[in-house]
Amino acid sequence: MEDLSGFKITVVGLGLIGGSMAKALKKLNPDKLWAFDKDASVLNNAKANNTIDDGFKDNDEVLAASDIVLIALYPKDTAEFIISKMNCFKQNAIITDACGLKQYIFEQVEKNIRKDINFIGGHPMAGKEVSGFKNADENMFVNSSYFLISSNNCTAESLSLLETIVYLIGCKNVIKVSADEHDQIIAYTSHLPHIIAVSLINCCNMDFQLNKISGGSFRDATRVANINSKLWGKLLIENRRNSLTMLDKFIDNLNTMKEYISNQDLVSLNSELDKAASKRKEF
Amino acid sequence: MEDLSGFKITVVGLGLIGGSMAKALKKLNPDKLWAFDKDASVLNNAKANNTIDDGFKDNDEVLAASDIVLIALYPKDTAEFIISKMNCFKQNAIITDACGLKQYIFEQVEKNIRKDINFIGGHPMAGKEVSGFKNADENMFVNSSYFLISSNNCTAESLSLLETIVYLIGCKNVIKVSADEHDQIIAYTSHLPHIIAVSLINCCNMDFQLNKISGGSFRDATRVANINSKLWGKLLIENRRNSLTMLDKFIDNLNTMKEYISNQDLVSLNSELDKAASKRKEF
Repeated sequence: MEDLSGFKITVVGLGLIGGSMAKALKKLNPDKLWAFDKDASVLNNAKANNTIDDGFKDNDEVLAASDIVLIALYPKDTAEFIISKMNCFKQNAIITDACGLKQYIFEQVEKNIRKDINFIGGHPMAGKEVSGFKNADENMFVNSSYFLISSNNCTAESLSLLETIVYLIGCKNVIKVSADEHDQIIAYTSHLPHIIAVSLINCCNMDFQLNKISGGSFRDATRVANINSKLWGKLLIENRRNSLTMLDKFIDNLNTMKEYISNQDLVSLNSELDKAASKRKEF
Repeated sequence: MEDLSGFKITVVGLGLIGGSMAKALKKLNPDKLWAFDKDASVLNNAKANNTIDDGFKDNDEVLAASDIVLIALYPKDTAEFIISKMNCFKQNAIITDACGLKQYIFEQVEKNIRKDINFIGGHPMAGKEVSGFKNADENMFVNSSYFLISSNNCTAESLSLLETIVYLIGCKNVIKVSADEHDQIIAYTSHLPHIIAVSLINCCNMDFQLNKISGGSFRDATRVANINSKLWGKLLIENRRNSLTMLDKFIDNLNTMKEYISNQDLVSLNSELDKAASKRKEF
């Protein structure tokens, strides 16, 4: 498969991720690319610049005609959309999402799901510190990783098709895991770095402008502190079992570093530094 | 002053920082740019590509002819060099260093200093995760910040001259502070982010390759985990009073975040996130 001809696709939510997804998918020539958004001006823009064929606030007939529905809303809205539209989806359609948490979505969706559709969780490991369709980028997913979480309710063919599409939009790695594994991984590789960035910038007040007294290490470590609190507060609390476990592991390791520094134990400290350097070099 | 004509300069240590400094200074046409390094092949390369006029393992006559001596060695070697060469320096010469710690250098140097030379501490807030003259870059300091720490032993004219040179090599901000203030600031804006990067990458082992399951937040937060342990172990221990204080502040803040997440206190959590976002936007 080299393009999306033969497929009608609907993207729900034309924010940064949904908008980037729509732009990336449109390049692959689907028969139709439709979008839903609550903001009519976003839909008009997307139609005007040929990102989508048509846009709607809501349209059950469009859903019933869509082979693939990609929902790029906040977690609660994603679950509500899937459940409320359950009777509208086309038979054998692939329904996928882009939420950063998977257990929550699966708990909500799996108990209410129709047996003749294919529900597959998705999570693109890509983003920017800006939001909205205006910042959407057709190359957002190039060389990134993408989690796919199959459900008890999807065929091997549908999973394979979605995997192919994910590679077609430019992703380099597809990681297939369970919802539980996904949420543990994300607590470490995404939620913890975001907590760290916030704490690092909040933990101390200096008499100087931070950008004047900082080099690249502080700048990089706090890049994501410019955070969307509306999204992230809920994510961290929803995934609290995993995010608290990872925070504890991290604080334990910091306390070990403290001990080495405090005891002037250069041998143990250097061994931690060397271990980190060697792990980071594998990147 | 628009260039360095009229000045003879010696750079001691042609590593990443000394080499970049030599390249940046050479563009400003000093009467002479000399360098010391223990590695003859580095000196030969630097001479061959016209970074320096001549290079030496050691040469007291060259020091006696230098108006400015910039020492880019590790802290202990920097202090030892200045003290051992105290009787060689030219009268009224500016002696400056590039160490990431200033109290240590000042304690060592100030008690042994000749009254007719100008000792000024320096710390360029620039670097890379690679080392050596082969990675030196004449634009390393462009748009960066540079700390200058005056001593009881420098004239206002010499400080002003060095400040001018720092701007000439491209720095955007010169921060003039005491050695004590410098080491506190650096503990926060540099030492803490390095400890964090190391702890973040060391605190957890996953069954997947880290680069496949990470997005930009993890990549950025761990960039400096590819650390030079030979340099950093000593820096963190030497500055332990400040680095431990900052680590405690950071861990306190993490524990506050833990409490908010654990109590599902979305209001307090979002307020921390919003505070961080607003501080980061000032960058």
